[in-house]
Amino acid sequence: MKLFEILVTNDDGLNARGVKEAAALMRTYGNVTVVAPSEPQSGKSAAISLENTLRLNLVESLSASEELGSLRIYGFTGTPVDCVKMGVNLFIGEGRMPDLLVSGINHGSNASVASVYSGTLGAAAEGAIYAIPSIGLSLCSHNPDPDFTGVIHYSRIIMDKLLETGISRGIYLNVNFPNLPLEEIKGIKLAHQGHGRWIREFDKRTDPRGREYYWIIGRFLNLDDAQDADHNLIDNGYVSIVPHRVDNTDYQEIERLRDIWSF
Amino acid sequence: MKLFEILVTNDDGLNARGVKEAAALMRTYGNVTVVAPSEPQSGKSAAISLENTLRLNLVESLSASEELGSLRIYGFTGTPVDCVKMGVNLFIGEGRMPDLLVSGINHGSNASVASVYSGTLGAAAEGAIYAIPSIGLSLCSHNPDPDFTGVIHYSRIIMDKLLETGISRGIYLNVNFPNLPLEEIKGIKLAHQGHGRWIREFDKRTDPRGREYYWIIGRFLNLDDAQDADHNLIDNGYVSIVPHRVDNTDYQEIERLRDIWSF
Repeated sequence: MKLFEILVTNDDGLNARGVKEAAALMRTYGNVTVVAPSEPQSGKSAAISLENTLRLNLVESLSASEELGSLRIYGFTGTPVDCVKMGVNLFIGEGRMPDLLVSGINHGSNASVASVYSGTLGAAAEGAIYAIPSIGLSLCSHNPDPDFTGVIHYSRIIMDKLLETGISRGIYLNVNFPNLPLEEIKGIKLAHQGHGRWIREFDKRTDPRGREYYWIIGRFLNLDDAQDADHNLIDNGYVSIVPHRVDNTDYQEIERLRDIWSF
Repeated sequence: MKLFEILVTNDDGLNARGVKEAAALMRTYGNVTVVAPSEPQSGKSAAISLENTLRLNLVESLSASEELGSLRIYGFTGTPVDCVKMGVNLFIGEGRMPDLLVSGINHGSNASVASVYSGTLGAAAEGAIYAIPSIGLSLCSHNPDPDFTGVIHYSRIIMDKLLETGISRGIYLNVNFPNLPLEEIKGIKLAHQGHGRWIREFDKRTDPRGREYYWIIGRFLNLDDAQDADHNLIDNGYVSIVPHRVDNTDYQEIERLRDIWSF
């Protein structure tokens, strides 16, 4: 079997269980380099750190065994995209590129419009910008210690496909897993990014000195009744896979505007 | 003439010249509410603040005159997307929604893959999620005090079209202006998000205590020789307009994967 070189990151940070599960899974496919945020970076989208300096720390290093690839784990004090850039930088310094980027396993859904704000998906987009086959994995549970059995089972099926056939250049995959026991998951479906948005987004409070401040909160408003919207598939017990694109141009709108706007 | 209700934000922060230029321009179209980051937020993409609390401060308030709409300026301690959420929250509290969201005028290019990392574009995406016609404006100069004459001239032409015809739901516009005197700008062109990426992305330094740290840097690598790639149009003296989409699904890749992957 070919040993793959796999870069792993996440947005919940180095100490989250999800990234450890991802690293353990991917060691069954090859050598794993984890470059993950030192602190939680949820909701960081594709942000990069332009105002502050960044530190890299090697946290752990394990050799390959007969059954598992090698593992090296770095903490990096930046965003998920910063972590991908640093991971790729490490590979480039070794005269090579990763075969695959895995971002996650995220604790919480990245379906529908959550994919816009998601650091998990920001990291996967960055991998695709480098032309690395890239995949974001998210379990729809905010339990810090959830049951990953279904995620691991179905991730293997998806990884086998992905590593066999690849995906088109400039595409990255957003995979979301329902928070269900393995036997209750109905299967895998290709999906589109569901249409929706958040409402009631601020919790206004008063601090001990009498000044107002805000927490961002919100409730998801489902604006998509299509069966193959990712969040609807997940609600119905399926694993959803949405292919996302780095090139975010709407080519149809170019043609439409060319007809009605004349400069 | 109809007076429009316009929400303005940016990612360079409340004190940048660009957002003041945008507010002044938009007051000729209607009443302007600025909710801009208290501190610079370049490169923040569509990040939202989940780990920290946020403060809102009213900075300035001017009544409408015969020729200009009213102006109210708020500083908000979050990201550009946080600012849009708060701006929309203010409007919702008043029982209405903005007619238009303007993000910018950014100091620096947001063409090609810069649009992925851009806080200016993250804010415009957020406007589109709320179904508000939304536009990001960026001048390809990092001079903090550049010549905005060409930007203002061509922004008026684009705003007139946008407010007359609207854009399709779920679309937002990424407009980039070349850093040229007005008379040297050749015109406006619809464009696609140019293909490219950054290389040599880290400046590694040693701190006074002998420990290594990094700054993110990089040089743009142009991977697109199409004439209608946005960064190429700008280099050739044109104002570029790219329609971006909130729904980032690649529907062709769904069909391709459906054929080759069977679950």
